Amino acid sequence: MKYKVIGSSVNRLDAVAKVTGKAKYADDFFERDMLVGKVLRSPYAHAIVKNVDTSKAMALPGVEAVIWHKDLPKIQFPTAGHPYSLDPGHRDVADKLILTDKARFVGDAVAAVIAVDELTAEKALKLIEVDYEVLPFVLDPEEAIMPGAPVIHEERPNNIVASFGAQYGNMEEDIKNSEHVFEGEFQTAIVQHCHIENQSAYAYVDTDDRIVIVSSTQIPHIVRRIVGQALGLPWGRIRVIKPYIGGGFGNKQDVIIEPLTAAMTLAVNGRPVRLAYTREEVFIDTRTRHAMKFNLKTAVSKEGKLLGITVKDIVTQGAYASHGHSIAMSAGSKFRPLYNFNSVVFDPKTIYTNLPTAGAMRGYGVPQIIFALESHIDDIARELKMDPIDFRMQNLISVGHADPLTKNVVRTFGIPECIEKGKELIKWDEKKKKYKNQSGEKRRGVGMACFSYLSGTHPVGLELAGCRIVMNQDGSVQLQIGATEIGQGSDTVFAQMIAEVLGIPMDMVHVISSQDTDITPFDTGAYASRQSYVAGAAVKKAALEVKDKVLSLAKIKTGINKEELDIVDANIVEKTLGRVLCSLEDIAMESYYDRVYAAPITSDTSENVRVNAPAYGVSFAEVEVDMHTGKIEVLEIYNVHDSGIILNPKLAEGQVHGGVSMSLGYALSEQMIFDKKTGKTLNNNLLDYKLQTILDTPEIGTAFVELEEPTGGFGQKSLGENPTISPAPAIRNAVLDATGVGFNKLPMNPQAVYEKFKEAGLL
Amino acid sequence: MKYKVIGSSVNRLDAVAKVTGKAKYADDFFERDMLVGKVLRSPYAHAIVKNVDTSKAMALPGVEAVIWHKDLPKIQFPTAGHPYSLDPGHRDVADKLILTDKARFVGDAVAAVIAVDELTAEKALKLIEVDYEVLPFVLDPEEAIMPGAPVIHEERPNNIVASFGAQYGNMEEDIKNSEHVFEGEFQTAIVQHCHIENQSAYAYVDTDDRIVIVSSTQIPHIVRRIVGQALGLPWGRIRVIKPYIGGGFGNKQDVIIEPLTAAMTLAVNGRPVRLAYTREEVFIDTRTRHAMKFNLKTAVSKEGKLLGITVKDIVTQGAYASHGHSIAMSAGSKFRPLYNFNSVVFDPKTIYTNLPTAGAMRGYGVPQIIFALESHIDDIARELKMDPIDFRMQNLISVGHADPLTKNVVRTFGIPECIEKGKELIKWDEKKKKYKNQSGEKRRGVGMACFSYLSGTHPVGLELAGCRIVMNQDGSVQLQIGATEIGQGSDTVFAQMIAEVLGIPMDMVHVISSQDTDITPFDTGAYASRQSYVAGAAVKKAALEVKDKVLSLAKIKTGINKEELDIVDANIVEKTLGRVLCSLEDIAMESYYDRVYAAPITSDTSENVRVNAPAYGVSFAEVEVDMHTGKIEVLEIYNVHDSGIILNPKLAEGQVHGGVSMSLGYALSEQMIFDKKTGKTLNNNLLDYKLQTILDTPEIGTAFVELEEPTGGFGQKSLGENPTISPAPAIRNAVLDATGVGFNKLPMNPQAVYEKFKEAGLL
Repeated sequence: MKYKVIGSSVNRLDAVAKVTGKAKYADDFFERDMLVGKVLRSPYAHAIVKNVDTSKAMALPGVEAVIWHKDLPKIQFPTAGHPYSLDPGHRDVADKLILTDKARFVGDAVAAVIAVDELTAEKALKLIEVDYEVLPFVLDPEEAIMPGAPVIHEERPNNIVASFGAQYGNMEEDIKNSEHVFEGEFQTAIVQHCHIENQSAYAYVDTDDRIVIVSSTQIPHIVRRIVGQALGLPWGRIRVIKPYIGGGFGNKQDVIIEPLTAAMTLAVNGRPVRLAYTREEVFIDTRTRHAMKFNLKTAVSKEGKLLGITVKDIVTQGAYASHGHSIAMSAGSKFRPLYNFNSVVFDPKTIYTNLPTAGAMRGYGVPQIIFALESHIDDIARELKMDPIDFRMQNLISVGHADPLTKNVVRTFGIPECIEKGKELIKWDEKKKKYKNQSGEKRRGVGMACFSYLSGTHPVGLELAGCRIVMNQDGSVQLQIGATEIGQGSDTVFAQMIAEVLGIPMDMVHVISSQDTDITPFDTGAYASRQSYVAGAAVKKAALEVKDKVLSLAKIKTGINKEELDIVDANIVEKTLGRVLCSLEDIAMESYYDRVYAAPITSDTSENVRVNAPAYGVSFAEVEVDMHTGKIEVLEIYNVHDSGIILNPKLAEGQVHGGVSMSLGYALSEQMIFDKKTGKTLNNNLLDYKLQTILDTPEIGTAFVELEEPTGGFGQKSLGENPTISPAPAIRNAVLDATGVGFNKLPMNPQAVYEKFKEAGLL
Repeated sequence: MKYKVIGSSVNRLDAVAKVTGKAKYADDFFERDMLVGKVLRSPYAHAIVKNVDTSKAMALPGVEAVIWHKDLPKIQFPTAGHPYSLDPGHRDVADKLILTDKARFVGDAVAAVIAVDELTAEKALKLIEVDYEVLPFVLDPEEAIMPGAPVIHEERPNNIVASFGAQYGNMEEDIKNSEHVFEGEFQTAIVQHCHIENQSAYAYVDTDDRIVIVSSTQIPHIVRRIVGQALGLPWGRIRVIKPYIGGGFGNKQDVIIEPLTAAMTLAVNGRPVRLAYTREEVFIDTRTRHAMKFNLKTAVSKEGKLLGITVKDIVTQGAYASHGHSIAMSAGSKFRPLYNFNSVVFDPKTIYTNLPTAGAMRGYGVPQIIFALESHIDDIARELKMDPIDFRMQNLISVGHADPLTKNVVRTFGIPECIEKGKELIKWDEKKKKYKNQSGEKRRGVGMACFSYLSGTHPVGLELAGCRIVMNQDGSVQLQIGATEIGQGSDTVFAQMIAEVLGIPMDMVHVISSQDTDITPFDTGAYASRQSYVAGAAVKKAALEVKDKVLSLAKIKTGINKEELDIVDANIVEKTLGRVLCSLEDIAMESYYDRVYAAPITSDTSENVRVNAPAYGVSFAEVEVDMHTGKIEVLEIYNVHDSGIILNPKLAEGQVHGGVSMSLGYALSEQMIFDKKTGKTLNNNLLDYKLQTILDTPEIGTAFVELEEPTGGFGQKSLGENPTISPAPAIRNAVLDATGVGFNKLPMNPQAVYEKFKEAGLL
């Protein structure tokens, strides 16, 4: 075994704290005289805010302030949690005001109350009088780009956020050379993250006259920057603290409530103000997953070789740009290092509509495109009368593949092994045979789907991560890391890395779980499945620096060359003899108290990671379809991942369980529904929004193909978002296998299934 | 002017926060379900705690725990806020238990209650039944070392904490060669620090199963170590946080309440417990200033040259060792680099008594010895019929003087200039003449006294300081420093240093005022007037490193050699041309966002300061003595300091005002009084303890002689404790000048003065 701590299923560091309620979330902190902020929202999908009369609300005892856009700087700012770019052409679209001067969806924030308590704030909201000029609105992206459609943002009169794409090779040539050209249309729904903890933050002005914001965010350092931008303040005047948070899934990779929370404290002379969204608010005024409508056209040779593909992608952005076209572009690039196409044309349009804003969500566009692609691939195999696995196998890329556009190189590629494992787990061949030619009320089938993903955002985004380690007198260490623990277990995995490199047990690693932009090393945060791969590189670098300092001091103390020294089980050992020279504590004590050499051992470092390892996986699903009710039951589902070396199998399994569960909902039940007449969200609560519960969830099988990725510090690749990508198309393909009907639109809820079966003449 | 920011009276960074109440002290933080701890104290000065029956107290609703020594590890620990030593022979005396098994003074902590509120805790205290075996006690140190005296600590059957001294030269030879031998006896009182904020702390067990203690302390990193020692836990399992604190003066350079607070939280399964001392408790169970009784014997040549001196010093320690003999040794070494003695014999005895424990207090033994020495010097001059200033002047050391024992070298020596300035300020010659041969009810006189002090503890103690600087995207910086702001203004001065080195305005320096042992660079804390001299060295080093990183990146961006670059007014300039190349913000942005060179600019460093600059000063006082009532009024008082370059004149003046005020009380009114029959403190409150108020305080004149000290990073030397040293003997010498009576015992309160006048036949 190469590693001692890496690869073992150590318990989450925060497990006990979270189970016992000791772990503190944003709502658990109290400041003296904390005020409550509440938001007044537009009842119209599209309306100019002509005037706001706050006088009656202000007159209510207990109301400290009422603000609207005229009280705030008129600065349009971006909200996406991306690293800032020095190139103005690469920055996110800045189309938000803290409180809007034009409502662009039902629920847009128009005014805000700061009051002594929630009840008073709620009462005051009702006393605010807004003079709206109501405008026509548009909900459908394809209608939104038609001539004469209502213009949602003046800066983009055609309602297109962006429409640039990507392409390589010669698709026309490939079509010319092909035997078959297949087309397919696929569509995904608007869904929501449904993290357990709603967005919540509080802010105050500190003793240094700076704005402090404690927020449930994935990206504290980016929140700092964007609040600075939104308020027109130097970024150093903002301080953001992230405590434990109850999930994010990308929705907290957006700066949504913090600028308003900051504006609220400024409105009351710096007194602390809490802004905690309700679940209903989270559904409409945070972010959703982009609905995408794909048109795929694929050229295939006589031998069943994929030659070229054209993907048209209509992306529903909603009211504000948020991550906007980045998500389309992510979809358009991350599927590429999977099948060996000669040519790819990716042609997306990200389009404003008068709907809640779509943003980052686990998988970042890839669950959408992989649903389309892997459904399409299965359809093609079916048409070609080929086994869908054989068809895929003969079209896979191989190690050494370099993306023609990003130049990203594939150094490990585990799809064939993943497929092998998945087939065995689900007993593919046996079931495939057994389920042929079914009839009757309940029909079973098996399906599978592959995916490719990346580990971070390089080379699109800057991948900078920071880490600081401080060694205590007893040889234990504190770890400060800019990368944020958001429930995924990153703290634990980073601690394992430190323990591994430093040769100490886990209980000697103390992780400062909270990030504070004043003092925590810079890192852009938790997203893009970058933590263990990207931030792990900074952690390893810092740990190696600490180890080097320990051994340098040990050399002074022992006289033995550093190259001959190592740290094993918190002892300094002479490598060749395996002899213990002294304890690590002895050296740590010297680092604090030696009269000449004293210099406490720390590392404060950063790493700019300029590689990106594609990660892979497959889903295998077995379904039973009730032909009468349209209900699809997933009997078995397996996710087999190539994520390099698995750092902590138990945590990895947890990631997979969560991701698969999310994809089950994506496949079968989840969607936000809007009233076509008003634009109002009809199911913005957890009763009407059909999230999968534990009762809906089958046993989820997990397996890993562990190829050591040379660019990962410990052989690792991404795993965070990955599990959520391929289950939906695998289920869809299993339903196709069971019924012969290909569902091209998500979710496949009983109503949709029933309707489609009727259409197909099965009922 | 060499400096731009250094030397200017910038406002305290915390001024507004403290005035408006925004600054948070230990008592201002709240945790959910915080419990209250209270201490049961011994009514006996000396008594074995045979048994404690906690049953009745435990039965009281709301009482969560009652603990006594049997519930705690039997580990004797030291409490002094000294750096730990790797040499067991140099460690502090470990003679404390968290709760004692033998009461050694009236008020010793015997048991503790943890309850839901203060009232319940107080009630519970009364329900605890303690079975004491009462022992004979001793309050007087000279009695304590007589045969048959009660033994206070078994480990030291003669009650002597320590009695080693220091000597050089040949005193016998000097006496042989002398024309005169003078002797004098001098005595100082037990006084108390009377910091505004009482000792207060709270502790809880965190999500990482570590003990977190938030405490009003000068020495968070030492508290961590000592709590670890006291509980027998690895030091890394303790985390100490220091918020703003309301003064310390050395009393919070001792680890007094934190081990008990930690034990309290452990007694209630890690729930938060607050232990806040009352003023009455602070007086008896924190620390006091050591009373010292000196016998001075000085050999003087015919020409009035000081040849040799023997100082015997009986030091009243009280019940526990605390800083113990270190304070005697500090007295015995810090007076030495002042007069040019051929020989010095310092012969101290630090003696346990059944009184409250003496510990560190501003001046650390030096106010005591300088009172004795400078009174003695005046007496000698008087005997020799010499002007006391002339006599001093002809005996001063000069630049280049190296202490024969410590090898400490004097590089700047401003006493002559200080005397010159002081004489002018008080109009010495004029008044000296005017006040000759007075009679009548009110008599006036002038007096003066000199002192020497040091800047830190080197070479006795290790002087390690740590500093971390983080540069933000806008070029502003955060400063984390282990050295603690305790009201003296160190945060402000460190910020000035950073602004000076980095060429940025003060408002671009954000000081993290709170120390947190998990993340704040290591520093032993605020004591020994070490902050600006010792910790300043670390700050300067870190700032220079940051500047170097900025200029390195600026070179990459501009192509101009680093040596040609500087930062001026937050711009990068080309030195020779004085041309602005770009803003510091531009470079800071590159450090965060350059796609290749990104590496946020930080420094995380420490400095082991192995030099120590003696600092100097003089006090000049004019008094009016009421011959009938014995009341001494100080009409004018001037302190003139040689503390090198003054970093912030306004703050420096504040230090002097505070120190002089403290010494006025020391001279005229303050003393703790004990009942001889019981050992009980009779005046442990601010009504009966006669602290000087603003009404008792004359206008205090301050002046500085600014010689640039080459070992100070900005030419500075110590100033923190210094002002409290020489006013008392200057006042005493002024009273001698006015009345012909030399008071050799402090305080010179009306009763003492009246009695002495009677004795001298003046009444």
